[in-house]
Amino acid sequence: MKRIYNFSAGPAILPEDVLRQAQEQMLDYKGSGMSVMEMSHRSKVYQGIIDEAEADLRKLLDVPSNYKILFLQGGGTTQFAMVPMNLSKTKQYDYVITGHWAQKAYDEAKIYGTPRIVASSKDKLYSYIPDCGDLDINPEADYVYMVDNNTIFGTKFKEYPNPKGKILINDASSSFLSEPMDVTKFGLIWAGAQKNVGPAGVVIVIIREDLLDNPVFDFTPTLLRYKIHADSGSMYNTPPAYGIYICGLVFKWLLNNGGLPAIKEYNEKKAAILYDYLDQSKLFYGTVEKYSRSLMNVCFRTDDEELNTQFIKEAKVAGFDNLAGHRSTGGMRASIYNAMPMKGVEALVDFMRVFEAQHGK
Amino acid sequence: MKRIYNFSAGPAILPEDVLRQAQEQMLDYKGSGMSVMEMSHRSKVYQGIIDEAEADLRKLLDVPSNYKILFLQGGGTTQFAMVPMNLSKTKQYDYVITGHWAQKAYDEAKIYGTPRIVASSKDKLYSYIPDCGDLDINPEADYVYMVDNNTIFGTKFKEYPNPKGKILINDASSSFLSEPMDVTKFGLIWAGAQKNVGPAGVVIVIIREDLLDNPVFDFTPTLLRYKIHADSGSMYNTPPAYGIYICGLVFKWLLNNGGLPAIKEYNEKKAAILYDYLDQSKLFYGTVEKYSRSLMNVCFRTDDEELNTQFIKEAKVAGFDNLAGHRSTGGMRASIYNAMPMKGVEALVDFMRVFEAQHGK
Repeated sequence: MKRIYNFSAGPAILPEDVLRQAQEQMLDYKGSGMSVMEMSHRSKVYQGIIDEAEADLRKLLDVPSNYKILFLQGGGTTQFAMVPMNLSKTKQYDYVITGHWAQKAYDEAKIYGTPRIVASSKDKLYSYIPDCGDLDINPEADYVYMVDNNTIFGTKFKEYPNPKGKILINDASSSFLSEPMDVTKFGLIWAGAQKNVGPAGVVIVIIREDLLDNPVFDFTPTLLRYKIHADSGSMYNTPPAYGIYICGLVFKWLLNNGGLPAIKEYNEKKAAILYDYLDQSKLFYGTVEKYSRSLMNVCFRTDDEELNTQFIKEAKVAGFDNLAGHRSTGGMRASIYNAMPMKGVEALVDFMRVFEAQHGK
Repeated sequence: MKRIYNFSAGPAILPEDVLRQAQEQMLDYKGSGMSVMEMSHRSKVYQGIIDEAEADLRKLLDVPSNYKILFLQGGGTTQFAMVPMNLSKTKQYDYVITGHWAQKAYDEAKIYGTPRIVASSKDKLYSYIPDCGDLDINPEADYVYMVDNNTIFGTKFKEYPNPKGKILINDASSSFLSEPMDVTKFGLIWAGAQKNVGPAGVVIVIIREDLLDNPVFDFTPTLLRYKIHADSGSMYNTPPAYGIYICGLVFKWLLNNGGLPAIKEYNEKKAAILYDYLDQSKLFYGTVEKYSRSLMNVCFRTDDEELNTQFIKEAKVAGFDNLAGHRSTGGMRASIYNAMPMKGVEALVDFMRVFEAQHGK
């Protein structure tokens, strides 16, 4: 068996401990005589799995009791629609555009109402997080929408926007569980599991209970109503059961390793190794303004496109996979989610040093 | 490691060979150095997995080239909405109601137009399939909707309804790949993977290409548009990648075991063991009219509710799990999908014989 260092932006690396557990339990989950994939979602044993996953997530993020945790399907693209479908009153929405995914959410909201851009970093190719301390929030806005960490451009909010009393919605997909988060600042947080938590096909939604009573549009499909899921413990229909089980194993792994304060410290150290190297390199440089740097997605490049391509190719041969930047940006991106070990980043920096010695001026 | 006989109606038993392969590949898929769960869906290796799954399914079911195969999320409940959202012109729809799931689809269609019931077996608790050879089809109907195999009541169409030139839509979830199916009879076939094909969280849709050009309602979320998925090879957003991989392993297992004609023969023999026993038993009896019997879900009971409960309990202890009927029907149900081995059904019948000897008159 070979394991490489996988810097994919998502679906992404998972803790090896978690994969080993899943492997061991594949044919017989704890003496049940079946795989978790084969279990009725209405069985006691599966109910135990989803209940424990929810309880562990609640503990990890310190989710208050007036927030519901939902395990849904359909990815972020479905959330882009569910948010306005479920939270509209005036059908006016304020969006902070920090990249591709915020833009996609904004575009989808046009189907349901009138979204407005209240801040954007498009002017500098999304290489920074705009100051959102005093936004021109629409007094009629149903909500203010933001993306916590931009996976493609490698930026992260350090201070959350001031929504001026409006509901703040956070697409936290690529920073979810990478550090503590004050849930009470948000009306709704959602995260696709495939960045930092589990396999693709699970979306986690944390929603303040009072928002469940907002009337939805008449045409909203049953399964796109948050309340339906909240009222049935994410079991209105068959949930993505195996994916939720893997998420649960990841939650347990985090709890057993000191929870979110510990993983934050680890992530900061890990990211610093890479950023410190980039800041002194004469060949490579980071593409994001220092204050806005993501701990999860580190974007960098050289000034020579051919050299970038060569670097990505040689790195792959050396066991560092998925270092190509998003197709819209080019360059390189190292996604160093929770499960990426320190030694993976150290080894990458060692490799970059050698590459720089060979190809730098 | 213990493996029991799992008669769950879904999520359900998977072939042990498939689980063993998944187990072996959990930390390193074919030398890639990563789990399929960790792979970028935009990587060559994952593209190979989904392409092979699609090609194998096309081969298994002999899907013509003018039909697209889609791997979606959101379960059947999402299909209940997607069908009318995507296929409406007059907003009039004809439904054949053979049980709970057809009824749910009918109810959801009311959000989008005017569904009508053209046949129903509700009068006898859905214990038979109504004659659908000469239905009073609405000449204006956008489509005729049916459920091939009723998981809860244990019925199965032997002859498909005559849609009189209208588009026939088939929810084939619990009979999918249990026998050959003439795809050309349908405009759209959909199946939740968790019955006979893979883990929950994947829905397979087979749709005739010309239907992709039907205008959708303006308010249709992007991800609920069939055309979006068809145009992007089920990769508009991150697909339920691991689930699709498992489906692919199941397709390969079927192809390696003689394809659908062979599995049909096997399923017929398997079901006959159980039905033959039921037909001569003085304690147990099947609840479905003979001509309408499902090969996948065998519903039976005794006349004594307490005895039913005792049977389910003792069977569980003896290693036959999930034999309780659906909560809406009571009694017993043995779901004997493709992956249930002959010896599992034989052992169950042996157990029933002993139980009958102890408790029969």
